[in-house]
Amino acid sequence: METRKHVEVCFTPGEYEYFKSEYEIVVVIDVLRATTAICAAFANGIQSIIPVSTLEEAIEYKSKGYLVGAERKGQIVEGFDFGNSPFSYMKEELKGQDVVLTTTNGTKALHVAREAETVVVGSFINLDALCKWLEKQDKNILCLCSGWQDKFNLEDTICAGAICEYLIATGNFISDEDSSIAAKYLYISAKDNYFGYLKSSSHRRRLKNLNLNEDIKYCLTPNQTDVIPVLRNGKLVKI
Amino acid sequence: METRKHVEVCFTPGEYEYFKSEYEIVVVIDVLRATTAICAAFANGIQSIIPVSTLEEAIEYKSKGYLVGAERKGQIVEGFDFGNSPFSYMKEELKGQDVVLTTTNGTKALHVAREAETVVVGSFINLDALCKWLEKQDKNILCLCSGWQDKFNLEDTICAGAICEYLIATGNFISDEDSSIAAKYLYISAKDNYFGYLKSSSHRRRLKNLNLNEDIKYCLTPNQTDVIPVLRNGKLVKI
Repeated sequence: METRKHVEVCFTPGEYEYFKSEYEIVVVIDVLRATTAICAAFANGIQSIIPVSTLEEAIEYKSKGYLVGAERKGQIVEGFDFGNSPFSYMKEELKGQDVVLTTTNGTKALHVAREAETVVVGSFINLDALCKWLEKQDKNILCLCSGWQDKFNLEDTICAGAICEYLIATGNFISDEDSSIAAKYLYISAKDNYFGYLKSSSHRRRLKNLNLNEDIKYCLTPNQTDVIPVLRNGKLVKI
Repeated sequence: METRKHVEVCFTPGEYEYFKSEYEIVVVIDVLRATTAICAAFANGIQSIIPVSTLEEAIEYKSKGYLVGAERKGQIVEGFDFGNSPFSYMKEELKGQDVVLTTTNGTKALHVAREAETVVVGSFINLDALCKWLEKQDKNILCLCSGWQDKFNLEDTICAGAICEYLIATGNFISDEDSSIAAKYLYISAKDNYFGYLKSSSHRRRLKNLNLNEDIKYCLTPNQTDVIPVLRNGKLVKI
Protein backbone atom coordinates (compact mmCIF):
# COMPACT_ATOMS: atom_id res chain seq x y z
CA MET A 1 0.00 0.00 0.00
CA GLU A 2 1.24 3.48 -0.89
CA THR A 3 1.66 5.38 2.36
CA ARG A 4 3.49 8.37 0.94
CA LYS A 5 1.52 11.58 0.70
CA HIS A 6 1.11 13.66 -2.43
CA VAL A 7 2.61 17.04 -3.09
CA GLU A 8 1.19 18.52 -6.29
CA VAL A 9 1.11 21.86 -8.12
CA CYS A 10 -1.89 23.73 -9.49
CA PHE A 11 -0.80 26.49 -11.90
CA THR A 12 -3.74 28.90 -11.56
CA PRO A 13 -6.70 29.61 -9.26
CA GLY A 14 -8.97 28.78 -12.21
CA GLU A 15 -7.77 25.17 -12.26
CA TYR A 16 -8.16 24.70 -8.50
CA GLU A 17 -11.54 23.07 -8.99
CA TYR A 18 -9.87 20.08 -10.70
CA PHE A 19 -7.66 19.50 -7.65
CA LYS A 20 -9.36 20.72 -4.52
CA SER A 21 -11.03 17.73 -2.93
CA GLU A 22 -7.87 15.68 -2.47
CA TYR A 23 -5.56 17.88 -0.43
CA GLU A 24 -5.65 18.72 3.26
CA ILE A 25 -3.07 21.50 3.02
CA VAL A 26 -3.03 24.22 0.37
CA VAL A 27 0.06 26.42 0.06
CA VAL A 28 -0.87 29.67 -1.68
CA ILE A 29 2.03 31.21 -3.62
CA ASP A 30 2.26 34.67 -5.18
CA VAL A 31 5.99 35.37 -5.25
CA LEU A 32 5.67 38.77 -6.99
CA ARG A 33 4.49 40.06 -4.57
CA ALA A 34 1.46 39.30 -2.39
CA THR A 35 2.56 36.22 -0.46
CA THR A 36 6.09 37.59 -0.11
CA ALA A 37 4.66 40.81 1.33
CA ILE A 38 2.44 38.81 3.71
CA CYS A 39 5.45 36.85 5.01
CA ALA A 40 7.44 40.08 5.32
CA ALA A 41 4.58 41.64 7.26
CA PHE A 42 4.52 38.85 9.84
CA ALA A 43 8.30 38.87 10.05
CA ASN A 44 7.93 42.55 10.95
CA GLY A 45 5.46 41.85 13.75
CA ILE A 46 2.12 42.59 12.13
CA GLN A 47 -0.65 40.93 14.17
CA SER A 48 -2.98 39.73 11.40
CA ILE A 49 -3.88 40.25 7.74
CA ILE A 50 -7.41 39.99 6.44
CA PRO A 51 -7.22 39.09 2.73
CA VAL A 52 -10.17 40.32 0.68
CA SER A 53 -10.88 39.69 -3.01
CA THR A 54 -12.57 42.91 -4.08
CA LEU A 55 -11.88 46.62 -3.83
CA GLU A 56 -15.44 47.05 -2.51
CA GLU A 57 -14.64 44.98 0.57
CA ALA A 58 -11.34 46.84 0.99
CA ILE A 59 -13.13 50.20 0.90
CA GLU A 60 -15.62 48.98 3.50
CA TYR A 61 -12.80 47.98 5.87
CA LYS A 62 -11.10 51.32 5.28
CA SER A 63 -14.27 53.17 6.23
CA LYS A 64 -14.24 51.23 9.51
CA GLY A 65 -10.78 52.58 10.28
CA TYR A 66 -8.60 49.63 9.25
CA LEU A 67 -5.19 50.05 7.64
CA VAL A 68 -5.80 48.75 4.12
CA GLY A 69 -3.41 47.72 1.34
CA ALA A 70 -4.75 47.50 -2.21
CA GLU A 71 -2.87 46.63 -5.37
CA ARG A 72 -4.08 46.24 -8.93
CA LYS A 73 -1.78 45.56 -11.90
CA GLY A 74 1.33 46.22 -9.86
CA GLN A 75 0.32 49.63 -8.48
CA ILE A 76 -1.17 50.98 -5.24
CA VAL A 77 -4.84 51.74 -5.74
CA GLU A 78 -5.54 55.42 -5.16
CA GLY A 79 -6.86 56.22 -1.72
CA PHE A 80 -5.29 53.21 0.02
CA ASP A 81 -2.47 53.11 2.56
CA PHE A 82 -0.13 50.84 0.62
CA GLY A 83 0.02 48.15 -2.09
CA ASN A 84 1.87 44.86 -2.02
CA SER A 85 5.48 45.95 -1.88
CA PRO A 86 7.11 43.93 0.92
CA PHE A 87 8.94 47.10 2.01
CA SER A 88 5.71 48.88 2.84
CA TYR A 89 5.05 46.28 5.57
CA MET A 90 8.31 46.90 7.38
CA LYS A 91 7.30 50.15 9.05
CA GLU A 92 7.46 50.54 12.82
CA GLU A 93 3.88 51.77 13.10
CA LEU A 94 2.49 48.54 11.61
CA LYS A 95 3.81 46.32 14.42
CA GLY A 96 1.00 44.66 16.34
CA GLN A 97 -1.62 45.95 13.89
CA ASP A 98 -4.41 44.21 12.00
CA VAL A 99 -4.18 44.97 8.30
CA VAL A 100 -6.49 44.36 5.33
CA LEU A 101 -5.10 43.45 1.90
CA THR A 102 -6.46 43.00 -1.63
CA THR A 103 -4.22 42.24 -4.63
CA THR A 104 -4.64 41.30 -8.30
CA ASN A 105 -3.86 37.60 -7.97
CA GLY A 106 -2.68 36.50 -4.51
CA THR A 107 -5.78 37.30 -2.50
CA LYS A 108 -7.90 35.67 -5.20
CA ALA A 109 -5.96 32.43 -4.75
CA LEU A 110 -6.41 32.66 -0.96
CA HIS A 111 -10.11 33.13 -1.59
CA VAL A 112 -10.58 30.07 -3.83
CA ALA A 113 -8.63 27.89 -1.37
CA ARG A 114 -10.43 29.11 1.76
CA GLU A 115 -12.45 25.91 2.34
CA ALA A 116 -9.37 23.67 2.53
CA GLU A 117 -8.57 22.10 5.91
CA THR A 118 -5.39 24.19 6.21
CA VAL A 119 -4.28 27.13 4.06
CA VAL A 120 -0.74 28.46 4.49
CA VAL A 121 1.23 31.14 2.70
CA GLY A 122 4.39 30.33 0.75
CA SER A 123 7.13 32.39 -0.87
CA PHE A 124 10.85 32.19 -1.43
CA ILE A 125 11.48 34.25 1.71
CA ASN A 126 10.00 31.59 4.03
CA LEU A 127 10.77 28.57 1.84
CA ASP A 128 12.95 26.49 4.16
CA ALA A 129 10.82 27.03 7.25
CA LEU A 130 7.68 26.20 5.30
CA CYS A 131 9.16 23.03 3.77
CA LYS A 132 10.29 21.78 7.18
CA TRP A 133 6.85 22.42 8.64
CA LEU A 134 5.10 20.73 5.70
CA GLU A 135 7.37 17.70 6.05
CA LYS A 136 6.12 17.14 9.60
CA GLN A 137 2.40 17.29 8.81
CA ASP A 138 2.00 13.95 6.96
CA LYS A 139 -0.82 15.36 4.84
CA ASN A 140 -1.51 15.69 1.11
CA ILE A 141 -0.30 19.08 -0.06
CA LEU A 142 -1.33 21.24 -3.00
CA CYS A 143 0.82 24.20 -4.02
CA LEU A 144 -1.60 26.71 -5.52
CA CYS A 145 0.11 29.26 -7.75
CA SER A 146 -1.65 32.60 -8.06
CA GLY A 147 -0.62 33.11 -11.67
CA TRP A 148 -1.27 36.37 -13.48
CA GLN A 149 -4.89 37.09 -14.32
CA ASP A 150 -5.73 33.39 -14.60
CA LYS A 151 -2.68 32.59 -16.70
CA PHE A 152 0.38 30.50 -15.80
CA ASN A 153 3.20 32.34 -14.09
CA LEU A 154 6.84 31.29 -13.96
CA GLU A 155 8.03 32.52 -10.56
CA ASP A 156 5.16 30.97 -8.59
CA THR A 157 5.68 27.68 -10.42
CA ILE A 158 9.39 27.63 -9.61
CA CYS A 159 8.66 28.27 -5.94
CA ALA A 160 6.12 25.42 -6.00
CA GLY A 161 8.71 23.22 -7.74
CA ALA A 162 11.18 23.97 -4.93
CA ILE A 163 8.62 22.76 -2.36
CA CYS A 164 7.97 19.56 -4.36
CA GLU A 165 11.68 18.89 -4.76
CA TYR A 166 12.31 19.28 -1.03
CA LEU A 167 9.40 17.09 0.07
CA ILE A 168 10.03 14.33 -2.48
CA ALA A 169 13.68 14.19 -1.38
CA THR A 170 12.49 13.28 2.13
CA GLY A 171 11.16 10.00 0.72
CA ASN A 172 7.74 10.56 2.28
CA PHE A 173 6.06 12.37 -0.61
CA ILE A 174 5.34 11.71 -4.27
CA SER A 175 4.15 13.82 -7.23
CA ASP A 176 1.86 12.37 -9.88
CA GLU A 177 0.54 15.30 -11.87
CA ASP A 178 2.37 16.56 -14.95
CA SER A 179 2.09 20.09 -13.58
CA SER A 180 4.11 19.02 -10.54
CA ILE A 181 6.71 17.25 -12.68
CA ALA A 182 7.06 20.35 -14.88
CA ALA A 183 7.34 22.62 -11.81
CA LYS A 184 10.15 20.46 -10.47
CA TYR A 185 11.99 20.47 -13.80
CA LEU A 186 11.63 24.26 -14.04
CA TYR A 187 12.85 24.71 -10.45
CA ILE A 188 15.90 22.53 -11.11
CA SER A 189 16.92 24.58 -14.14
CA ALA A 190 16.24 27.88 -12.33
CA LYS A 191 17.65 27.25 -8.88
CA ASP A 192 21.18 28.48 -9.42
CA ASN A 193 20.03 31.88 -10.62
CA TYR A 194 16.41 32.81 -10.07
CA PHE A 195 17.01 36.38 -11.04
CA GLY A 196 18.59 35.54 -14.40
CA TYR A 197 16.15 32.73 -15.12
CA LEU A 198 13.16 34.98 -14.60
CA LYS A 199 14.65 37.85 -16.59
CA SER A 200 12.31 37.18 -19.49
CA SER A 201 9.26 36.41 -17.36
CA SER A 202 6.29 38.59 -18.10
CA HIS A 203 5.74 39.64 -14.50
CA ARG A 204 9.36 40.64 -13.96
CA ARG A 205 9.18 42.84 -17.05
CA ARG A 206 5.94 44.33 -15.78
CA LEU A 207 7.41 45.23 -12.37
CA LYS A 208 10.69 46.39 -13.85
CA ASN A 209 8.75 48.88 -15.95
CA LEU A 210 7.25 50.15 -12.69
CA ASN A 211 10.75 50.60 -11.21
CA LEU A 212 10.29 47.78 -8.77
CA ASN A 213 13.63 46.02 -9.23
CA GLU A 214 14.42 46.23 -5.50
CA ASP A 215 11.13 44.52 -4.74
CA ILE A 216 11.93 41.76 -7.22
CA LYS A 217 15.35 41.14 -5.68
CA TYR A 218 13.81 40.91 -2.22
CA CYS A 219 11.07 38.54 -3.42
CA LEU A 220 13.56 36.19 -5.09
CA THR A 221 15.93 35.92 -2.10
CA PRO A 222 15.18 32.68 -0.24
CA ASN A 223 14.95 32.10 3.51
CA GLN A 224 14.82 35.56 5.02
CA THR A 225 12.27 34.58 7.68
CA ASP A 226 10.85 31.57 9.53
CA VAL A 227 7.25 32.79 9.71
CA ILE A 228 4.46 30.66 8.25
CA PRO A 229 1.21 32.59 7.87
CA VAL A 230 -1.93 30.45 8.15
CA LEU A 231 -5.55 31.27 7.36
CA ARG A 232 -7.84 31.00 10.41
CA ASN A 233 -11.46 32.10 10.21
CA GLY A 234 -10.77 34.31 7.21
CA LYS A 235 -7.75 35.96 8.82
CA LEU A 236 -4.05 35.30 8.26
CA VAL A 237 -2.06 34.85 11.46
CA LYS A 238 1.32 33.38 12.40
CA ILE A 239 1.14 29.62 12.79
CA MET B 1 7.80 49.37 -34.05
CA GLU B 2 7.78 45.66 -33.26
CA THR B 3 7.21 43.82 -36.52
CA ARG B 4 7.91 40.33 -35.22
CA LYS B 5 4.93 38.07 -34.75
CA HIS B 6 4.06 36.23 -31.57
CA VAL B 7 4.26 32.51 -30.99
CA GLU B 8 2.69 31.60 -27.65
CA VAL B 9 1.55 28.52 -25.76
CA CYS B 10 -1.78 27.85 -24.09
CA PHE B 11 -1.60 24.84 -21.75
CA THR B 12 -5.22 23.69 -21.77
CA PRO B 13 -8.43 24.15 -23.77
CA GLY B 14 -9.96 25.70 -20.64
CA GLU B 15 -7.51 28.63 -20.77
CA TYR B 16 -8.04 29.28 -24.48
CA GLU B 17 -10.53 32.04 -23.70
CA TYR B 18 -7.70 34.17 -22.22
CA PHE B 19 -5.74 33.95 -25.47
CA LYS B 20 -8.03 33.50 -28.41
CA SER B 21 -8.63 36.94 -29.87
CA GLU B 22 -4.98 37.67 -30.65
CA TYR B 23 -3.85 34.81 -32.87
CA GLU B 24 -4.59 34.13 -36.52
CA ILE B 25 -3.20 30.59 -36.47
CA VAL B 26 -3.94 28.00 -33.79
CA VAL B 27 -1.86 24.81 -33.72
CA VAL B 28 -3.76 22.09 -31.86
CA ILE B 29 -1.47 19.56 -30.17
CA ASP B 30 -2.38 16.23 -28.57
CA VAL B 31 0.80 14.20 -28.83
CA LEU B 32 -0.58 11.13 -27.02
CA ARG B 33 -2.38 10.40 -29.32
CA ALA B 34 -5.10 12.26 -31.20
CA THR B 35 -3.11 14.77 -33.27
CA THR B 36 -0.38 12.19 -33.93
CA ALA B 37 -3.04 9.77 -35.17
CA ILE B 38 -4.57 12.48 -37.36
CA CYS B 39 -1.19 13.21 -38.98
CA ALA B 40 -0.55 9.48 -39.41
CA ALA B 41 -3.96 9.12 -41.06
CA PHE B 42 -3.21 11.79 -43.67
CA ALA B 43 0.26 10.37 -44.22
CA ASN B 44 -1.52 7.10 -45.02
CA GLY B 45 -3.80 8.73 -47.59
CA ILE B 46 -7.02 9.24 -45.65
CA GLN B 47 -9.16 11.83 -47.45
CA SER B 48 -10.62 13.76 -44.50
CA ILE B 49 -11.30 13.53 -40.78
CA ILE B 50 -14.36 15.05 -39.14
CA PRO B 51 -13.50 15.74 -35.50
CA VAL B 52 -16.50 15.66 -33.16
CA SER B 53 -16.60 16.43 -29.43
CA THR B 54 -19.24 14.06 -28.15
CA LEU B 55 -20.00 10.35 -28.40
CA GLU B 56 -23.56 11.29 -29.38
CA GLU B 57 -22.33 12.97 -32.56
CA ALA B 58 -20.00 10.04 -33.24
CA ILE B 59 -22.90 7.57 -32.93
CA GLU B 60 -24.99 9.66 -35.31
CA TYR B 61 -22.24 9.61 -37.96
CA LYS B 62 -21.85 5.86 -37.47
CA SER B 63 -25.53 5.32 -38.09
CA LYS B 64 -25.10 7.19 -41.38
CA GLY B 65 -22.46 4.67 -42.45
CA TYR B 66 -19.25 6.58 -41.68
CA LEU B 67 -16.10 4.92 -40.39
CA VAL B 68 -15.89 6.29 -36.85
CA GLY B 69 -13.05 6.31 -34.31
CA ALA B 70 -13.87 6.94 -30.66
CA GLU B 71 -11.53 6.99 -27.70
CA ARG B 72 -12.19 7.76 -24.05
CA LYS B 73 -9.54 7.48 -21.30
CA GLY B 74 -7.08 5.75 -23.62
CA GLN B 75 -9.39 2.99 -24.84
CA ILE B 76 -11.56 2.34 -27.91
CA VAL B 77 -15.20 2.98 -27.06
CA GLU B 78 -17.27 -0.20 -27.53
CA GLY B 79 -19.09 -0.38 -30.82
CA PHE B 80 -16.68 1.87 -32.74
CA ASP B 81 -14.25 0.97 -35.51
CA PHE B 82 -11.07 2.20 -33.85
CA GLY B 83 -9.73 4.59 -31.21
CA ASN B 84 -6.81 6.97 -31.50
CA SER B 85 -3.89 4.63 -31.97
CA PRO B 86 -1.88 5.95 -34.94
CA PHE B 87 -1.46 2.37 -36.14
CA SER B 88 -5.18 1.91 -36.63
CA TYR B 89 -5.09 4.61 -39.33
CA MET B 90 -2.46 2.86 -41.42
CA LYS B 91 -4.75 0.24 -42.94
CA GLU B 92 -5.07 -0.11 -46.69
CA GLU B 93 -8.89 0.07 -46.62
CA LEU B 94 -8.82 3.56 -45.08
CA LYS B 95 -7.05 5.18 -48.05
CA GLY B 96 -9.21 7.78 -49.71
CA GLN B 97 -11.88 7.50 -47.00
CA ASP B 98 -13.64 10.14 -44.89
CA VAL B 99 -13.37 9.27 -41.22
CA VAL B 100 -15.02 10.64 -38.06
CA LEU B 101 -13.09 10.90 -34.79
CA THR B 102 -13.85 11.75 -31.17
CA THR B 103 -11.23 11.59 -28.38
CA THR B 104 -10.93 12.55 -24.70
CA ASN B 105 -8.89 15.70 -25.18
CA GLY B 106 -7.70 16.35 -28.74
CA THR B 107 -11.04 16.80 -30.45
CA LYS B 108 -12.16 19.04 -27.59
CA ALA B 109 -9.20 21.34 -28.28
CA LEU B 110 -10.05 21.37 -32.00
CA HIS B 111 -13.59 22.29 -31.03
CA VAL B 112 -12.68 25.27 -28.80
CA ALA B 113 -10.29 26.61 -31.48
CA ARG B 114 -12.70 26.20 -34.41
CA GLU B 115 -13.43 29.94 -34.84
CA ALA B 116 -9.80 30.89 -35.37
CA GLU B 117 -8.77 32.10 -38.83
CA THR B 118 -6.64 29.00 -39.39
CA VAL B 119 -6.50 25.81 -37.30
CA VAL B 120 -3.76 23.29 -38.05
CA VAL B 121 -2.76 20.03 -36.38
CA GLY B 122 0.64 19.60 -34.75
CA SER B 123 2.56 16.64 -33.36
CA PHE B 124 6.13 15.43 -33.15
CA ILE B 125 5.66 13.34 -36.28
CA ASN B 126 5.06 16.40 -38.52
CA LEU B 127 7.10 18.88 -36.45
CA ASP B 128 9.66 20.06 -38.99
CA ALA B 129 7.23 20.41 -41.88
CA LEU B 130 4.80 22.30 -39.64
CA CYS B 131 7.48 24.67 -38.33
CA LYS B 132 8.67 25.48 -41.84
CA TRP B 133 5.13 26.18 -42.96
CA LEU B 134 4.39 28.35 -39.90
CA GLU B 135 7.58 30.33 -40.50
CA LYS B 136 6.30 31.38 -43.94
CA GLN B 137 2.88 32.59 -42.81
CA ASP B 138 3.93 35.80 -40.99
CA LYS B 139 0.98 35.48 -38.59
CA ASN B 140 0.56 35.38 -34.82
CA ILE B 141 0.53 31.76 -33.69
CA LEU B 142 -0.95 30.07 -30.64
CA CYS B 143 0.03 26.50 -29.79
CA LEU B 144 -3.00 25.04 -28.02
CA CYS B 145 -2.15 22.00 -25.91
CA SER B 146 -4.98 19.55 -25.38
CA GLY B 147 -3.89 18.61 -21.87
CA TRP B 148 -5.54 15.81 -19.97
CA GLN B 149 -9.07 16.46 -18.79
CA ASP B 150 -8.44 20.19 -18.48
CA LYS B 151 -5.14 19.77 -16.69
CA PHE B 152 -1.63 20.60 -17.90
CA ASN B 153 0.17 17.87 -19.82
CA LEU B 154 3.90 17.51 -20.30
CA GLU B 155 4.24 16.00 -23.80
CA ASP B 156 1.96 18.54 -25.51
CA THR B 157 3.83 21.35 -23.78
CA ILE B 158 7.21 20.05 -24.94
CA CYS B 159 5.97 19.80 -28.52
CA ALA B 160 4.67 23.39 -28.26
CA GLY B 161 8.03 24.44 -26.82
CA ALA B 162 9.77 22.90 -29.84
CA ILE B 163 7.63 25.01 -32.18
CA CYS B 164 8.40 28.19 -30.18
CA GLU B 165 12.12 27.43 -30.13
CA TYR B 166 12.20 26.91 -33.91
CA LEU B 167 10.23 30.04 -34.76
CA ILE B 168 12.06 32.31 -32.32
CA ALA B 169 15.38 31.13 -33.75
CA THR B 170 14.30 32.47 -37.16
CA GLY B 171 14.41 35.98 -35.69
CA ASN B 172 10.91 36.75 -36.92
CA PHE B 173 8.95 35.64 -33.86
CA ILE B 174 8.87 36.45 -30.14
CA SER B 175 7.26 34.87 -27.07
CA ASP B 176 5.90 37.00 -24.24
CA GLU B 177 3.79 34.74 -22.10
CA ASP B 178 5.29 32.84 -19.17
CA SER B 179 3.60 29.68 -20.45
CA SER B 180 5.59 29.99 -23.68
CA ILE B 181 8.84 30.63 -21.82
CA ALA B 182 8.23 27.58 -19.61
CA ALA B 183 7.36 25.43 -22.63
CA LYS B 184 10.62 26.43 -24.28
CA TYR B 185 12.64 25.67 -21.14
CA LEU B 186 10.93 22.28 -20.81
CA TYR B 187 11.56 21.48 -24.47
CA ILE B 188 15.24 22.35 -24.15
CA SER B 189 15.71 20.02 -21.19
CA ALA B 190 13.70 17.25 -22.87
CA LYS B 191 14.92 17.38 -26.45
CA ASP B 192 17.79 14.92 -26.21
CA ASN B 193 15.58 12.15 -24.87
CA TYR B 194 11.83 12.65 -25.05
CA PHE B 195 11.15 9.10 -24.08
CA GLY B 196 13.23 9.24 -20.90
CA TYR B 197 12.08 12.73 -20.01
CA LEU B 198 8.45 11.74 -20.20
CA LYS B 199 8.94 8.50 -18.30
CA SER B 200 7.31 9.93 -15.21
CA SER B 201 4.55 11.80 -17.04
CA SER B 202 1.07 10.85 -16.00
CA HIS B 203 -0.14 10.15 -19.52
CA ARG B 204 2.77 7.90 -20.39
CA ARG B 205 2.10 5.87 -17.25
CA ARG B 206 -1.58 5.69 -18.18
CA LEU B 207 -0.87 4.40 -21.69
CA LYS B 208 1.88 2.07 -20.53
CA ASN B 209 -0.63 0.43 -18.22
CA LEU B 210 -2.78 -0.12 -21.29
CA ASN B 211 0.16 -1.81 -23.09
CA LEU B 212 0.54 1.04 -25.52
CA ASN B 213 4.31 1.42 -25.41
CA GLU B 214 4.63 1.01 -29.19
CA ASP B 215 2.14 3.83 -29.66
CA ILE B 216 4.13 6.04 -27.31
CA LYS B 217 7.38 5.39 -29.17
CA TYR B 218 5.71 6.24 -32.48
CA CYS B 219 4.17 9.43 -31.07
CA LEU B 220 7.50 10.65 -29.68
CA THR B 221 9.51 10.09 -32.88
CA PRO B 222 9.84 13.42 -34.72
CA ASN B 223 9.50 14.09 -38.43
CA GLN B 224 7.97 10.96 -39.87
CA THR B 225 5.73 12.87 -42.30
CA ASP B 226 5.36 16.21 -44.07
CA VAL B 227 1.55 16.40 -43.89
CA ILE B 228 -0.10 19.39 -42.23
CA PRO B 229 -3.78 18.78 -41.49
CA VAL B 230 -5.92 21.94 -41.53
CA LEU B 231 -9.50 22.50 -40.39
CA ARG B 232 -11.80 23.66 -43.22
CA ASN B 233 -15.53 23.94 -42.67
CA GLY B 234 -15.47 21.60 -39.72
CA LYS B 235 -13.40 18.98 -41.57
CA LEU B 236 -9.69 18.21 -41.37
CA VAL B 237 -7.96 17.95 -44.74
CA LYS B 238 -4.37 18.10 -46.02
CA ILE B 239 -3.19 21.66 -46.44
